[in-house]
Amino acid sequence: MDDRYALERLKYRYLRTLDLKQWDEFAACFVPEATADYAGLAFGSRDELVGYMRANLGPGLITMHTAHHPEIEVSGDEATAIWYLEDTVLAPELSFALEGAAFYEDHCVRTPDGWRIVHTGYRRTYEKSWSTSDVASLKITTGTAYEAPPRL
Amino acid sequence: MDDRYALERLKYRYLRTLDLKQWDEFAACFVPEATADYAGLAFGSRDELVGYMRANLGPGLITMHTAHHPEIEVSGDEATAIWYLEDTVLAPELSFALEGAAFYEDHCVRTPDGWRIVHTGYRRTYEKSWSTSDVASLKITTGTAYEAPPRL
Amino acid sequence: MDDRYALERLKYRYLRTLDLKQWDEFAACFVPEATADYAGLAFGSRDELVGYMRANLGPGLITMHTAHHPEIEVSGDEATAIWYLEDTVLAPELSFALEGAAFYEDHCVRTPDGWRIVHTGYRRTYEKSWSTSDVASLKITTGTAYEAPPRL
Repeated sequence: MDDRYALERLKYRYLRTLDLKQWDEFAACFVPEATADYAGLAFGSRDELVGYMRANLGPGLITMHTAHHPEIEVSGDEATAIWYLEDTVLAPELSFALEGAAFYEDHCVRTPDGWRIVHTGYRRTYEKSWSTSDVASLKITTGTAYEAPPRL
Repeated sequence: MDDRYALERLKYRYLRTLDLKQWDEFAACFVPEATADYAGLAFGSRDELVGYMRANLGPGLITMHTAHHPEIEVSGDEATAIWYLEDTVLAPELSFALEGAAFYEDHCVRTPDGWRIVHTGYRRTYEKSWSTSDVASLKITTGTAYEAPPRL
Repeated sequence: MDDRYALERLKYRYLRTLDLKQWDEFAACFVPEATADYAGLAFGSRDELVGYMRANLGPGLITMHTAHHPEIEVSGDEATAIWYLEDTVLAPELSFALEGAAFYEDHCVRTPDGWRIVHTGYRRTYEKSWSTSDVASLKITTGTAYEAPPRL
């Protein structure tokens, strides 16, 4: 149960730092040799993956990734997890909006510093995209820059 | 805690196999005498329920059902659970889209093979539907056929 | 683990009673001296907070608030929690729709009656609003009045 809880926390940290563009903390969720495959967008190492995110998910791109329904199996120092992803991508300057869903399949390993991701990836169930110029009244605002809160 | 975790896993399997249209695995979430009532769409047995889904949720109908906020009470070999459902239904050929929410109220029983659903159902909080032809730019794509991953 | 589970249940009760407009049960989630700050909409006491909700979230306003990704830290009789909020607000008579996301940061305390919220609040990551009159076909229906189910 403690392992499962730690693996859930790892996933939440990965997605929180992704959406808040905190790339150093995001990188710390992975082992260096980690690989990823997001419905065909594939990466062969942590540096490649984090470098791509840093370069492509700038302040003009709003993302929301929430993961649900953890189905986690732990076997010694390895674990697999299925998660049900919902995601939203908004690029106001491009009038672009996307909503979709996917099933994540993660592989994690126990390290001296805690659980880390060694492979992550998902397969889409569906994806829907549209131009926000079709909804003339649409207004999008972003919050003020978010800072992680002090913890107890 | 182990019972609660097993009951959560049952719910996730039920929703994953529903959205992936894996009807045999979906059926295995229920006892044969199970009943259901989805905001008035009611079924008197597992066969009736699964038969309906198999007949009506074909490949042209995209669904996403995610359940949140488990409030589970276990009493011996019985359990009740409230869940907060969010659902999306897309029927591209009919230009139909629906998004809604509901509170699930489940009743589960412990069997020699693990927890199973004996009654499931929900009451809507709201439902919103629209014709996708009102958003001219809308594009919907589905993933490749999903296969459950090998587990550890 | 039991504390974390109790704190999750508190959050689910708070959001369920908010969306079902059950204001007495909603109030019971807080200590009297509780404060709140929802992206600038701030309250200095439980009475102030609950009074505002009671006055402003009438039957014509449909809300859905789901909270995901609990990152909970317990320290003795105090706890902090980060949650990832997704929310939808619909006001059919005003043709108003809003969808957004935020990170909640809660502070809870253990009381003789269980965990209670002493401060809650969130900072937006984004917010998107639009007039439903831009989507001519849109139909919104609400469920029948929801009553909490009998529990085991």
